[in-house]
Amino acid sequence: MTVAYEDMEIGMAIDVGEYTFARDEIVRFAEQFDPQPFHLDDAAAAASPFRGLVASGWHTCSAMMGLLVRNYLADSTSMGSPGIDEIRWVKPVRVGDTIRMRNKIVAKRVMESKPDRGIVSTEWECVNQHDEIVLIVRSKGIFGLRDPAQARA
Amino acid sequence: MTVAYEDMEIGMAIDVGEYTFARDEIVRFAEQFDPQPFHLDDAAAAASPFRGLVASGWHTCSAMMGLLVRNYLADSTSMGSPGIDEIRWVKPVRVGDTIRMRNKIVAKRVMESKPDRGIVSTEWECVNQHDEIVLIVRSKGIFGLRDPAQARA
Repeated sequence: MTVAYEDMEIGMAIDVGEYTFARDEIVRFAEQFDPQPFHLDDAAAAASPFRGLVASGWHTCSAMMGLLVRNYLADSTSMGSPGIDEIRWVKPVRVGDTIRMRNKIVAKRVMESKPDRGIVSTEWECVNQHDEIVLIVRSKGIFGLRDPAQARA
Repeated sequence: MTVAYEDMEIGMAIDVGEYTFARDEIVRFAEQFDPQPFHLDDAAAAASPFRGLVASGWHTCSAMMGLLVRNYLADSTSMGSPGIDEIRWVKPVRVGDTIRMRNKIVAKRVMESKPDRGIVSTEWECVNQHDEIVLIVRSKGIFGLRDPAQARA
């Protein structure tokens, strides 16, 4: 059944899968969107504060979004997002790291201007294979209501 | 000359260039990282709240990061970022839109724990060809000092 605004309860946590960062994907993303030496080149990265090649933070966020869409939003009433309230790149993501993502619902409200949809605030908790948090994202999404008339009653 | 922490003054605004979002790039990014119908398919997008194909917000941010790196950070003492304080996807970015980005320096401080580097807070103001703001990003970056001894004096 398609997930609608009404199905999202504050406190729910949904595991949306995991993603392994291969070297060639880290480098390919960086070449296009974030060509800093520590995302591109092993020798330069070894000499950087990261002491080795690390994924762009925008790559990490984008890959986690991919998990969320494929494993949760794909069959939902998702209508996009007004923005992100916070991103914390807590620890570097390195070649071969496998990052798993849990999406927690932390707040929700029906929109006053458009009462057929609501804004849902979530927190993405992203953890590596050593159980270390590498990334926290506080996000907002807009979701259609299954039954707007009921919500207004 | 390489841009270091000392060169960044609060109130400075740097134009870092512009990027045009081609249809094939919008779709390719979405297929990999954000396969929601309104980023992938014209007919589905026309029926969505966006009324047409729009770039993933993660694509917009990543493309703006590419401008920033190529036209500003490339010759700097950039040492990565602890995170983002806010992203606001104010208006959709559509096929053929040209988005220009201005990076404003809004705050800076030397790190107490590592006095050879500082944290610089910036605001990315991203505007389309109709002079409409489409994206605001409040970001933090870490930059090496040119002369840490001088800064501590």
